Amino acid sequence: MKTGTTPAPAPLHTSADLTITDITITPIAFSDPPLLNAVGVHEPLVHRVVIEVRTANGLLGLGECSGGRSRLENLALGANAIKGVSVFDTTRMEQLINHALDPGLSAFERAAVFSAFEVACLDIQGHATGRTVSELLGGTVRDAVPFSAYLFYKWAEHPALDGRPAIADEWGEALDPAGIVRQARKMISDYGFKSIKLKGGVFPPAEEIEAIRALREAFPALPLRLDPNTAWTVETSQWVAGKTDGLLEYLEDPTPGLEGMGAVASTAPMPLATNMCVVAFEHIRQSIELGSVQVILGDHHYWGGLRHTRELGTICETFGLGLSMHSNSHLGISLAAMVHVAAATPALTYACDTHYPWNGHNDVVKPGALRFVDGSVRVPTGTGLGVELDREKLAELHQQYLDARMTARDDTGYMQRFDPDYSADLPRW
Amino acid sequence: MKTGTTPAPAPLHTSADLTITDITITPIAFSDPPLLNAVGVHEPLVHRVVIEVRTANGLLGLGECSGGRSRLENLALGANAIKGVSVFDTTRMEQLINHALDPGLSAFERAAVFSAFEVACLDIQGHATGRTVSELLGGTVRDAVPFSAYLFYKWAEHPALDGRPAIADEWGEALDPAGIVRQARKMISDYGFKSIKLKGGVFPPAEEIEAIRALREAFPALPLRLDPNTAWTVETSQWVAGKTDGLLEYLEDPTPGLEGMGAVASTAPMPLATNMCVVAFEHIRQSIELGSVQVILGDHHYWGGLRHTRELGTICETFGLGLSMHSNSHLGISLAAMVHVAAATPALTYACDTHYPWNGHNDVVKPGALRFVDGSVRVPTGTGLGVELDREKLAELHQQYLDARMTARDDTGYMQRFDPDYSADLPRW
Repeated sequence: MKTGTTPAPAPLHTSADLTITDITITPIAFSDPPLLNAVGVHEPLVHRVVIEVRTANGLLGLGECSGGRSRLENLALGANAIKGVSVFDTTRMEQLINHALDPGLSAFERAAVFSAFEVACLDIQGHATGRTVSELLGGTVRDAVPFSAYLFYKWAEHPALDGRPAIADEWGEALDPAGIVRQARKMISDYGFKSIKLKGGVFPPAEEIEAIRALREAFPALPLRLDPNTAWTVETSQWVAGKTDGLLEYLEDPTPGLEGMGAVASTAPMPLATNMCVVAFEHIRQSIELGSVQVILGDHHYWGGLRHTRELGTICETFGLGLSMHSNSHLGISLAAMVHVAAATPALTYACDTHYPWNGHNDVVKPGALRFVDGSVRVPTGTGLGVELDREKLAELHQQYLDARMTARDDTGYMQRFDPDYSADLPRW
Repeated sequence: MKTGTTPAPAPLHTSADLTITDITITPIAFSDPPLLNAVGVHEPLVHRVVIEVRTANGLLGLGECSGGRSRLENLALGANAIKGVSVFDTTRMEQLINHALDPGLSAFERAAVFSAFEVACLDIQGHATGRTVSELLGGTVRDAVPFSAYLFYKWAEHPALDGRPAIADEWGEALDPAGIVRQARKMISDYGFKSIKLKGGVFPPAEEIEAIRALREAFPALPLRLDPNTAWTVETSQWVAGKTDGLLEYLEDPTPGLEGMGAVASTAPMPLATNMCVVAFEHIRQSIELGSVQVILGDHHYWGGLRHTRELGTICETFGLGLSMHSNSHLGISLAAMVHVAAATPALTYACDTHYPWNGHNDVVKPGALRFVDGSVRVPTGTGLGVELDREKLAELHQQYLDARMTARDDTGYMQRFDPDYSADLPRW
């Protein structure tokens, strides 16, 4: 063996009954409120994918990931590559999937494809051994995982539904500090969250600082975060960081790129966090050299599954970085996986993000296993992920996907239907 | 939650049948040849420890680690801390053990104590679930793990046995290049190794370079390594590195400290490797800043068990470092654990070290599970570690420990009995 050689995957030793015999990839669509962000507004429907992995002995494991035409193609390639492999051979699966995917594909997309299958295989491992997924990761260091209230500027309702029936929206409009505080009060009352994140990058920074000040006044004890998704220049970010000194536990992705973040970090009084400039292991080295970020928002969909997310935690501990957790619009399979890995990762230093309050009523898993109590989700106690698929709901959401003829997420295009001059060029301020 | 807070471990959720009910810690002593190194010579007996963990439902798991009076005390504290815990809760165990140990203890010693129990618990997890330990780590990426021929300068026999019977030594003397080549021929003939490591730091560097040249001539195709255990100054190291350009796949620990290693690395034509200046996660950051090493020799006894060793592999991949594996004098429980984690770690880029050819005939595990073929050990296929304790042998080696009244390893003191002027001050040249 020599450094740097990457031999083609060798033949597998498999264990007959737990080899993968069948994988079902089901694209689905579910309703999403009109949440505003730095590149537009969430469309009425989110495209996502449910993965079902089955073994020779009839066990079923679940995975979930974001959708899109190229993702579905890559999932199909990945599924084909791991048929016949034991569900315990997930590291080998990663090699086989990488071998099967287009060599030009980003580390990020490779990780996302593997992650969906790894979660499903860990789910099966749990069913096969009578253990939870967190036990298979080394066991829990917390019985419940804290999440933050994820606030968005939003419209009262979707302006274009293209013939689909109106979607009930119990949240109302939030376009100013009072609206944001109102949203926070409802979300904290419903879920008990103990920290708050505001998705920014929507209005000029001074207005968003006012929203943070209003939140601080309304919730004096709760840690606050602001995430403008790189909507600001380095100078604007430095100005906002100065203005929010003492108000934020961290400032997330104020400006694009590792260099820009490093420049902001050099003067910011609070830690900077990211789920945009450090999203794969290959980004870590330079981010540490530049001091770009002090907190990484892990995400098992981004980082290649649950084991790699725990490894990211060890890297964060080793380099003195904080660890939080990012979320996209998601359902209960992803939430269960997040909870298991977060509970098993000692390095987690902040409450995690989740879109579940916005999307959970669409869930494809049967109710009961995932509940928020005081802003935390208890680790499910059933074997594997501890959640069960609702097949009627899955069929309904799949039909919704088919009817909508969705291809890829397009927050900007949807926004431009109402504001033809809208540009998603960032940084904006 | 806030960055940097480390709450005391919270109550456990345990699973009744797989909770730990009993732990046996058995110090043992086994014979060791008179192998020379930079601080003296191996004593006639090595002190080591066998750990047996038992669960409420009667399962048994094995661990092994180096011995010494303080190690035994720390193991006893650790064992006490994890009784009643589920064998699946190893991450929690690490917290509980850390909590129980003296706060002033090094990260290195903490990791060594936890590692012995983690391996035993993974062994039980395997028995309980019908899987191998490597499967519990994500599965193998290689069916057999390559090791290197580990050559030592040595005397023909031990000069002082203190009344114990003479120990058969089939290896003979090796005190010059011809002796080293002779030793290599026998070891490669017996085991089939495909790479060679010479423990140096014994004779002046020019003589050891001659031994390397003789090995290159005798084995033109095999990668070579030289490890003087920090016996050289920076200048001497740079001189040796120049003289061995093109001869070594890596030079291991030529000089002490991260700064010294960085200075050598800045001019050395080959990678530098270490198991001395980077032996815990807390050393990695500075070593990367200084460019001290290009290869880390992992060791699950040093790095806190099998899961953390895999995590070390991810760090090596992330920072472009090579990964090999270190060994002390050891028996088959440690070898099985090394093989399982090495087989499960994609980042492994070099054949591993092992003292097994020097010590394997003393093994406490029953023969058959661990065999070298072409220099590699196939991953044991039995559940857990796949090895079984030989209780008669264990009792014999324990009695040998009791009779010898051993406390701590002392290569230097043993050498000084024959050479009162011997000094272990390093660097020596």
